[in-house]
Amino acid sequence: MPDPHGSLPAPETDPAFLDSALAAADAVGFVAVGNRFDDGLRYLTRFSGPDRNYAFVYADGEAILCAPALFTEQAEREFAGTVRTTDVGDPTGIRAANTLSDLGASSGTVLVPQSIPHDAAVHLEQAGYDLESTTAVADARLIKTESEIDCLRRVQRAAVRGMRRAEEILAAAEPMDDELIWQDAPLSTERLRRQVNAELAVYGVRDAGNTVIGAGPTCADLHYTGMDVLRPDETILLDISPRGPHGYYGDLSRTYVVDSNGGWERRAYVAVEAALKAGLAEIEPGAHANEIHREAAAELTAHGFDPNADEGEAGFTHGTGHGVGISLHEGPSLREPVELESGMVFTVEPGVYDPEQGGVRLEELVVVTEDGYETLHEYPRSFTPRAD
Amino acid sequence: MPDPHGSLPAPETDPAFLDSALAAADAVGFVAVGNRFDDGLRYLTRFSGPDRNYAFVYADGEAILCAPALFTEQAEREFAGTVRTTDVGDPTGIRAANTLSDLGASSGTVLVPQSIPHDAAVHLEQAGYDLESTTAVADARLIKTESEIDCLRRVQRAAVRGMRRAEEILAAAEPMDDELIWQDAPLSTERLRRQVNAELAVYGVRDAGNTVIGAGPTCADLHYTGMDVLRPDETILLDISPRGPHGYYGDLSRTYVVDSNGGWERRAYVAVEAALKAGLAEIEPGAHANEIHREAAAELTAHGFDPNADEGEAGFTHGTGHGVGISLHEGPSLREPVELESGMVFTVEPGVYDPEQGGVRLEELVVVTEDGYETLHEYPRSFTPRAD
Repeated sequence: MPDPHGSLPAPETDPAFLDSALAAADAVGFVAVGNRFDDGLRYLTRFSGPDRNYAFVYADGEAILCAPALFTEQAEREFAGTVRTTDVGDPTGIRAANTLSDLGASSGTVLVPQSIPHDAAVHLEQAGYDLESTTAVADARLIKTESEIDCLRRVQRAAVRGMRRAEEILAAAEPMDDELIWQDAPLSTERLRRQVNAELAVYGVRDAGNTVIGAGPTCADLHYTGMDVLRPDETILLDISPRGPHGYYGDLSRTYVVDSNGGWERRAYVAVEAALKAGLAEIEPGAHANEIHREAAAELTAHGFDPNADEGEAGFTHGTGHGVGISLHEGPSLREPVELESGMVFTVEPGVYDPEQGGVRLEELVVVTEDGYETLHEYPRSFTPRAD
Repeated sequence: MPDPHGSLPAPETDPAFLDSALAAADAVGFVAVGNRFDDGLRYLTRFSGPDRNYAFVYADGEAILCAPALFTEQAEREFAGTVRTTDVGDPTGIRAANTLSDLGASSGTVLVPQSIPHDAAVHLEQAGYDLESTTAVADARLIKTESEIDCLRRVQRAAVRGMRRAEEILAAAEPMDDELIWQDAPLSTERLRRQVNAELAVYGVRDAGNTVIGAGPTCADLHYTGMDVLRPDETILLDISPRGPHGYYGDLSRTYVVDSNGGWERRAYVAVEAALKAGLAEIEPGAHANEIHREAAAELTAHGFDPNADEGEAGFTHGTGHGVGISLHEGPSLREPVELESGMVFTVEPGVYDPEQGGVRLEELVVVTEDGYETLHEYPRSFTPRAD
């Protein structure tokens, strides 16, 4: 069957990575329960699933998906292991317990993610299992395979197209009476966002509600998605994080100023770009993730910005980056002293904000390689929007 | 601040609806924990939230949102109650327990949704509370307010625009060598889906991964999102379920055949439209939801289709409808003998499928009114795609 994303195959997850966690805990099996919004479950099963709960069970080297009603065909198409339909309709925790038992694991310790739904946990306990939580899935997700990196590159290509569309519109917009006019009407964050999201859709990915555009002061509000008129000589901050092939996310941020008179915007842009470069320069296997944050923050300090501001204050109000994969936010965090390894994928995204002035953030998505890092997209940075 | 969806205000949820559940269980408070994908939590808080867990706590008549780090401004903008930031960084279950205690509820029974994350449940239990699950939130969501119905009408208007775009493209497509050609290239389900999703984006709503398009045999696969070439004389089934203002979903399905020779497709279409009308005719306050299903199924039987087929078999393979609101699938289910009340919103969507032939489904979204029902959109049904 042809794939909607061209020749890009779904990444595969070999559940045998769970064996060492099971052995270490002397556990008889692993169970995860959740719905389509549980990214750990999607990583384990590649099943894009429904909005109701289903279960993944692993024991004795065998992986079983307890398929939800009406989703058997989709589960069989997407999941590489066995799809179980015998007790469709029973609560998911009970189905998981039945499955463990059928696999010969009728009692003992079962490993689960710590946020497994409470009702499923209670059903497993009532069936005689002791539950112990594990971070094995999150740990495995830290290192991306070539196939996962291909998915990330592909969705990042869509993010680039969305950003190009925005930059092109901003370059064509004309200042008039302290507003930016595009195609004979004032340009707002919402109008620009719709254009970006339409471009993402045409390219076959979803905006996933993650296209954040701030204008002037609202740039300082990290998750602003309201409707402001865009103005000349103000920062316009775009953070585009679409979800693409097989559920992998892209992430790309740029900040532009149309008709700048210099001032705070220019000074902030120079500082953030220097911080970005300083952070990127730290990336190599064996380095620690928090060194990237430290170097970026030091650069911002050198440019006169507070590197430890609280949200709503002037300065750098967030961390320098986060892992990206089948979740938009996953490990590693660049606040933690995690040792970098080849195959880790994360953002580097310093920013400075001033509720009175605006906000500047620049973000690149990188993968750690054997001898440094590779950026997962090609897109120039520019303070002034480029027409082409 | 201007709203991204024009003048449409966010619906409000008065948490006092929880009081009767608390009194009935002699409970001291209610706690929900989840992330942006937990629709019950979104209903309670109107906070569009992050992809990590946060908590809603209600006790002694007061509602508190334990805001996640970096989301304080957004939480204060969206949540009508008190936003708590004192213990940001502690596990969400511990923050919820602290909050209960600060509200004077230092021990006793606490009501929770049954799928509360297990780690949060354990933290609450360790803090000395007894947990009891409640369906109070799902029950409250069954009856929509005028403000919620406005959101549903608005997103349904976007679904109509997406469907119009698809129908227009299908009307313009030309059969050639057993394929449909549009703008000089073969039209596929994926190509058509991208056009529909771009239209949704321009209208300011998200496809949310829910634009399902089947062609011929893949229409029988209820959640197919692959890439098939569209052909003349085959069913083309579109199910468009975008997410719009304040998180409310639309839902609309149509089935078209280009250049039909009659046969199975025409016969199935006539049966499904008759079933739809028979189902709709049952809707009024005091009727039971499963009567809609029964009448629709009876009509399909009369037309010679199996009303109880399993997925992958020929016939009617699913229920006749489901509630729609801040979740795409919620109560009431049209399989259950729920008594219909004014303000309930649900789909009516009979369908027949044949893995050898194709599939036909027609879907309308309705609200029960004082004296019958109202369809939440205006969109004609047609077997042959209409140019305008």
